[in-house]
Amino acid sequence: MVKTPKESLTILTDIVLPGETNPLGNLFGGELLARMDRACSIAARRHSRRIVVTASVNHVAFNKAVPVGSVVTIEAKVSRAFKSSMEIYVDVWIEDRESQERSKVNEGIYTFVAVDTTGTPVTVPQIEPETELEKKRFQGALRRKELSLILSGKMNPNEATELKALFTN
Amino acid sequence: MVKTPKESLTILTDIVLPGETNPLGNLFGGELLARMDRACSIAARRHSRRIVVTASVNHVAFNKAVPVGSVVTIEAKVSRAFKSSMEIYVDVWIEDRESQERSKVNEGIYTFVAVDTTGTPVTVPQIEPETELEKKRFQGALRRKELSLILSGKMNPNEATELKALFTN
Amino acid sequence: MVKTPKESLTILTDIVLPGETNPLGNLFGGELLARMDRACSIAARRHSRRIVVTASVNHVAFNKAVPVGSVVTIEAKVSRAFKSSMEIYVDVWIEDRESQERSKVNEGIYTFVAVDTTGTPVTVPQIEPETELEKKRFQGALRRKELSLILSGKMNPNEATELKALFTN
Amino acid sequence: MVKTPKESLTILTDIVLPGETNPLGNLFGGELLARMDRACSIAARRHSRRIVVTASVNHVAFNKAVPVGSVVTIEAKVSRAFKSSMEIYVDVWIEDRESQERSKVNEGIYTFVAVDTTGTPVTVPQIEPETELEKKRFQGALRRKELSLILSGKMNPNEATELKALFTN
Amino acid sequence: MVKTPKESLTILTDIVLPGETNPLGNLFGGELLARMDRACSIAARRHSRRIVVTASVNHVAFNKAVPVGSVVTIEAKVSRAFKSSMEIYVDVWIEDRESQERSKVNEGIYTFVAVDTTGTPVTVPQIEPETELEKKRFQGALRRKELSLILSGKMNPNEATELKALFTN
Amino acid sequence: MVKTPKESLTILTDIVLPGETNPLGNLFGGELLARMDRACSIAARRHSRRIVVTASVNHVAFNKAVPVGSVVTIEAKVSRAFKSSMEIYVDVWIEDRESQERSKVNEGIYTFVAVDTTGTPVTVPQIEPETELEKKRFQGALRRKELSLILSGKMNPNEATELKALFTN
Repeated sequence: MVKTPKESLTILTDIVLPGETNPLGNLFGGELLARMDRACSIAARRHSRRIVVTASVNHVAFNKAVPVGSVVTIEAKVSRAFKSSMEIYVDVWIEDRESQERSKVNEGIYTFVAVDTTGTPVTVPQIEPETELEKKRFQGALRRKELSLILSGKMNPNEATELKALFTN
Repeated sequence: MVKTPKESLTILTDIVLPGETNPLGNLFGGELLARMDRACSIAARRHSRRIVVTASVNHVAFNKAVPVGSVVTIEAKVSRAFKSSMEIYVDVWIEDRESQERSKVNEGIYTFVAVDTTGTPVTVPQIEPETELEKKRFQGALRRKELSLILSGKMNPNEATELKALFTN
Repeated sequence: MVKTPKESLTILTDIVLPGETNPLGNLFGGELLARMDRACSIAARRHSRRIVVTASVNHVAFNKAVPVGSVVTIEAKVSRAFKSSMEIYVDVWIEDRESQERSKVNEGIYTFVAVDTTGTPVTVPQIEPETELEKKRFQGALRRKELSLILSGKMNPNEATELKALFTN
Repeated sequence: MVKTPKESLTILTDIVLPGETNPLGNLFGGELLARMDRACSIAARRHSRRIVVTASVNHVAFNKAVPVGSVVTIEAKVSRAFKSSMEIYVDVWIEDRESQERSKVNEGIYTFVAVDTTGTPVTVPQIEPETELEKKRFQGALRRKELSLILSGKMNPNEATELKALFTN
Repeated sequence: MVKTPKESLTILTDIVLPGETNPLGNLFGGELLARMDRACSIAARRHSRRIVVTASVNHVAFNKAVPVGSVVTIEAKVSRAFKSSMEIYVDVWIEDRESQERSKVNEGIYTFVAVDTTGTPVTVPQIEPETELEKKRFQGALRRKELSLILSGKMNPNEATELKALFTN
Repeated sequence: MVKTPKESLTILTDIVLPGETNPLGNLFGGELLARMDRACSIAARRHSRRIVVTASVNHVAFNKAVPVGSVVTIEAKVSRAFKSSMEIYVDVWIEDRESQERSKVNEGIYTFVAVDTTGTPVTVPQIEPETELEKKRFQGALRRKELSLILSGKMNPNEATELKALFTN
């Protein structure tokens, strides 16, 4: 069975309350990470129709502060599915109240695993990307998976053919 | 000025409450990410004596579920300092109530930047690692910084000399 | 200036955590009211580009329990704008994890007022409904406004021409 | 069995914390709705001695902002009981710290249903109002029930004899 | 100026949510301490009409577990006023849903100090107890104040005339 | 079986968020009491390896305000064990961000009881104090236990030999 990324699209729009901010009056990075995780878990659940658990968080860069009172929109979509794991790409935006212009705050990549009620991994549907951006993210997912296996000591760098190509060409 | 990692050691021990758990009765990944961020921000603040903001989260792998009622211990230490940014390594443990044996839940790497009250980056003290583990993490930090710059499109893979060595030797 | 309802569409998807449930294991009504209010306030803000404050909540019926672990989707859109007040219609859905079928939990109608930073009401753009449902909700808004004025003692029932027609025809 | 409204009187006094406020520094409407719901659910439970669930929220008008640091007093009492449903009137006050004068913030009307542990509605005691205000609210409850049935499409306006009288006399 | 204890009576009725419980399914002691502190601070504020800050918590014994879903009623009243400090007695009850019988969970004694906006202590009105229980608590307050000064090293046990009498007669 | 206080040492370092502060911008006393309770419960659990419940809170004096943004370090250690109850001493510090100097905010004494899963008290290991401070706290624990029994009416002041000595010598 094959599904598209947009079938798992999950949108979480919310306001930054004063109780979630640091001494500069901006949203704590950790609080944003938690919301991104919740949005990604819903996307993974919509794709797999299973209970899902966070397996890892890949690189997340915080490019822009999120001031108190901001409206934050988090959009998560499954970018690639492996056997029982799914890579989810999540984009975070804030919007200017007066101009309504959106600006990108950060993006993150989470990996979730689908499990049954005993916690055992189960197979998930594959992904067929549609848009250019979805295709680009789909292709990058294999490199990121290799990188993840290397960083956790489960793969030798020399076996990471996709990743190695980045540095040797 | 040079400081040791242990000068920034931050310990956050707490209990997993029922309100923070997923349908399997385990701590939500996102909630743990938020607590790890808070511990790292204190370590970065202790090292720099400045206001600090989250710049990025590197790879965090969730190896073990954390059931409701667990005592979770989060230990964060600055592993390397650059000009105004600091890499913080954070280890997470749970302990068995009866045997008191600790088991590793996961580890994470966060990057924080020290800023003044206007949000402008400021210089931080350098790090002199002491233990074997601190030295290993100090050495790996440069590779991780290169990787982070490549992933965010700010460095060409061919310039990443430390990282490239991993794949070409 | 005239805007469409869909320009203010706000989606808030989230998971029901164990800490938000009553003794039957379902989401507390009050907690859902609070989330609906947050979604409506963002829709009102997107329409008006102003600070907005809750003026009233009209009838909200809870037709279906929302069990712990549910994915709840809240969708809010401005249904009609008056001088400085806006009526916002909010629909709440849950989805079955396995079949992904959505079922309606409830719907609510909130009124917000746009204000400046001193709290003084300001004029907002008017609404041009597009779909059949938007048109129906737009037409009903005047009756509901009359009802609201009567209930708060600010209008005599005999002056409520729209509402009166309901009962006398 | 018949009980008086004051037997179900529930008082919830609390302070408005900074984390619950909007950009104007006032309590979020939604947060107040949630607290009102909790007070009403306790009043309904005290009247019925059963598990109770929110059935609907009738019109709630926010007449006055509630600034951070305010002491808010919520007073809820069952105003009328039907077969298994109860109408609860809730009044909200803030008090001036220096003069100790109370001012009314808003009032709301909630409907709760008493259920057994399987969620099936059960019969509740009837209400005998005592004070003038209790009698007035008791009498209005029937009109509000009709209105609620019309708004949810479960009654034809022409059958709403109590309500119709409002407009045709 | 003299006031009675009942002028400061503060009632906080609320429900114990699943997210506030320990592994036995009962309310965490610390969570109850926090709610008691909030009720006491409102009582102290009502008596003094000033900003108030917690000065100390005297002995609080937890005699009875508070299970999830309980309705908890906290009642706080100023028991004695000194120059700028006030002793507040707080009683905590739960009620059986079916029989509506109340049972005492614990009682606590908190001390608050009234301050101006710079944090400097200010004089507060004195207390005139009315009921037998209020008189008994008023009289005990002096002994407790001596005890508190001894425990914090600010008074020599031999100067504590009220307290000494307890042991030497 | 005998254990040392340091085997139960529990450290909880965290940041004071804006949502936890009073009108003077300082941490609410009640919020700090709750965190101290959590740290003490972990220390009691580490000592006893059992489920533990709060039995009482002895005198806690708040000597110093804790401003928003502070890093608060809570250190709890079992000071003495009786049959099934344990006294836990908890010290609270804040640190100056720039000088990193620590200052004592307050200290508290909590009593916990170890229980089995039915809530029945069970025997706990005894304590062998090591440092001077631990020895002093160990010795004072008996006096405090007598005081607690007197205050709750379970002991006659004349039987409190340890405590009586304080006043009669």
